[in-house]
Amino acid sequence: MISLHTSPLDQPGTGDAGGMNVYVLEVAKRLARQGAAVDIFTRATSSTLPAVVEAADGVLVRHVASGPFEGLTKGELPAQLCTFAREVLRTETLHPIGHYDVVHSHYWLSGQVGALARDRWGVPLVHSMHTMAKVKNAALAAGDAPEPSGRLIGEEQVVAAADMLIANTELEARQLVDLYGAEPGRVEVIHPGVDLSVFGRNQPAAARRELGLPLDAHVLLFAGRIQPLKAPDVLLRAVAVLLEEDPELRSRLVVPIVGGPSGSGLEHPESLAQLSSDLGLDDVVRFVPPVDQSRLATWYAASTLVAVPSHNESFGLVAVEAQAAGTPVVAAAVGGLTTVVDDGVSGLLVDGHDPRDWAAALRRVICDPALRARLSAGASAQARMFAWERTAQLTLETYDRARSLMRMDVAV
Amino acid sequence: MISLHTSPLDQPGTGDAGGMNVYVLEVAKRLARQGAAVDIFTRATSSTLPAVVEAADGVLVRHVASGPFEGLTKGELPAQLCTFAREVLRTETLHPIGHYDVVHSHYWLSGQVGALARDRWGVPLVHSMHTMAKVKNAALAAGDAPEPSGRLIGEEQVVAAADMLIANTELEARQLVDLYGAEPGRVEVIHPGVDLSVFGRNQPAAARRELGLPLDAHVLLFAGRIQPLKAPDVLLRAVAVLLEEDPELRSRLVVPIVGGPSGSGLEHPESLAQLSSDLGLDDVVRFVPPVDQSRLATWYAASTLVAVPSHNESFGLVAVEAQAAGTPVVAAAVGGLTTVVDDGVSGLLVDGHDPRDWAAALRRVICDPALRARLSAGASAQARMFAWERTAQLTLETYDRARSLMRMDVAV
Repeated sequence: MISLHTSPLDQPGTGDAGGMNVYVLEVAKRLARQGAAVDIFTRATSSTLPAVVEAADGVLVRHVASGPFEGLTKGELPAQLCTFAREVLRTETLHPIGHYDVVHSHYWLSGQVGALARDRWGVPLVHSMHTMAKVKNAALAAGDAPEPSGRLIGEEQVVAAADMLIANTELEARQLVDLYGAEPGRVEVIHPGVDLSVFGRNQPAAARRELGLPLDAHVLLFAGRIQPLKAPDVLLRAVAVLLEEDPELRSRLVVPIVGGPSGSGLEHPESLAQLSSDLGLDDVVRFVPPVDQSRLATWYAASTLVAVPSHNESFGLVAVEAQAAGTPVVAAAVGGLTTVVDDGVSGLLVDGHDPRDWAAALRRVICDPALRARLSAGASAQARMFAWERTAQLTLETYDRARSLMRMDVAV
Repeated sequence: MISLHTSPLDQPGTGDAGGMNVYVLEVAKRLARQGAAVDIFTRATSSTLPAVVEAADGVLVRHVASGPFEGLTKGELPAQLCTFAREVLRTETLHPIGHYDVVHSHYWLSGQVGALARDRWGVPLVHSMHTMAKVKNAALAAGDAPEPSGRLIGEEQVVAAADMLIANTELEARQLVDLYGAEPGRVEVIHPGVDLSVFGRNQPAAARRELGLPLDAHVLLFAGRIQPLKAPDVLLRAVAVLLEEDPELRSRLVVPIVGGPSGSGLEHPESLAQLSSDLGLDDVVRFVPPVDQSRLATWYAASTLVAVPSHNESFGLVAVEAQAAGTPVVAAAVGGLTTVVDDGVSGLLVDGHDPRDWAAALRRVICDPALRARLSAGASAQARMFAWERTAQLTLETYDRARSLMRMDVAV
């Protein structure tokens, strides 16, 4: 696997690390358990990182020296593609010929490197986009900068080079075909999973005690990287509407924002805190730095609902994790969230990002205990449809398919 | 050879094409004449370009499809490095093993690709920087943007990967060692050349008649890409000072600006024309679009002097071409210009870019026919020191040296 711009060992919820990091590591672990050893190449971002780290049985993370450890922005990474590829090729030569059977790249930068490695090693390239510039640019958050044309071009090249593409959802598969000209026969839909042993084991009351939250509070959680794309501002504006309509709720309301600034959000790391102050919400909003998976599971379980107001999500791992904890999700009806959240069954889908619509959806869940109980049960059931074991099994089958469909190019 | 971002077939003086394009083609031609066939890989920038063009006997230009033909800026090219490298490697596989003996890359983008090809083919990498970000950023023209850190990093990587580096001048060699940590034993100074059969064959009077210039005019020529780095504005401001001090000169003064906007100059293509108007020089300044080598030689020969006010030049091919035509050069005392121009013998060097200093230097040449005649003879003599045949001969020797000094890396 190649995950150039973000390491599966990074803490999700900060920097460039998010759902994709969880995905890469969880799938790699299950692939290894199913007998396929995995090397994950990622760019070294610190001089203290060893060249190789065993992340799990059969899963090695290889830190590739390419460019300075710190200070490179995502926009500067394209200039490192060639050197990164060179180092990956060099590492491979330390092994017997035929060491790798398949290259699986994540995100377009890795796909560029993967295409070259594929040629060189004579093995198929399987690529997962995770996010796509054309989709992101079509649903741009206010204040967010469009993705540069270099990324769009790079993505098109990766689609053309890949022997198989893995889409997280049916919608993503359609976008690959419609926007990037992928051959339908080379696109496989495989849903990501969720680890029920991590996210499904907490009881709400115990979770609240652990986090020091009142048992009778309405806890409306946002978890994710703080950037315009993820739209945490929509939740705050909706809460302001809610409190204006029903000031009584204030004393029982807690709105935790778990995550750190990222991407274009880094340019204004304080803007969400400023918005909270401007809306007079400082007594209800609580900013919590990114936490590990186990602690995040406690936050989900402790919450009345989890809000996912993103302008776009290829899948929406937060939504499926929250559901695994038995917590209803109020999500924007965009991208993979329409697959993950069963509207009215495991949570509520909201069209658009109007704070009044969001306030209405939040109110429905808060003020209707019967609905809440029904959605909670539905959420748990929905989460059981997403298992990493199944993701890995289908991924292995896709590797086989890529081998049989390998484009008839010269190996170089 | 690799010349990713600009083709040796492009017209110098426009877009990203300048002295380096001349260099690549002239050296390649002489290498071929000395028995070493040359393939030059460059990025295809038009759908009408054939895959392979024979530029001269033994010199093939290979157009590599990598990214859209038009509309990619230089800043977007780093994202194409990996795909470009992939296509270069694919092309090589169409030949018998061992087809290429050496990779010679020009400019850092090409060096990134060259480093990978070197590994793959098991041949040495010889690299020519032509320009360097750290040098350029240290002498930035007002209004010019500094080169991004991604380029600095990329250059450092190429220096570390190259088996030999070719510097155009002793100064460039020192900069490679001092600023980029190059091993002194891996840096060879080889001066570019000039084609006397092209630039030394025109008589001034005939040239003026051909261009319709009065025989008694003072013709002060600027030739080059119009961008802040090349500082054509300094010439215009100096001419304004000159005319203020000596209005009588006006009727006999012609200031041709031969070249097109390029680089950061593209953002304000009209700013030089605007400056000319603001300074009240529209009757003496004449804008001429880029011309081919033969026509440029006519312009040099027709000129009283050629001004090269650049903020930096790795070499300064315009200065040596002008001298080949027997025309004195008034140049900024920066970079390679201090090697090319023999101060007081083949032209005048000016410290800094103060228009008053420049006006004084222009006046010395214009108003002193004896000095002018001496400088003209000195210019012709100086130009004979620079011959492409010699450049090519030393380059071939450097290839041999690179082979014997090849870094002991694994081939991949």
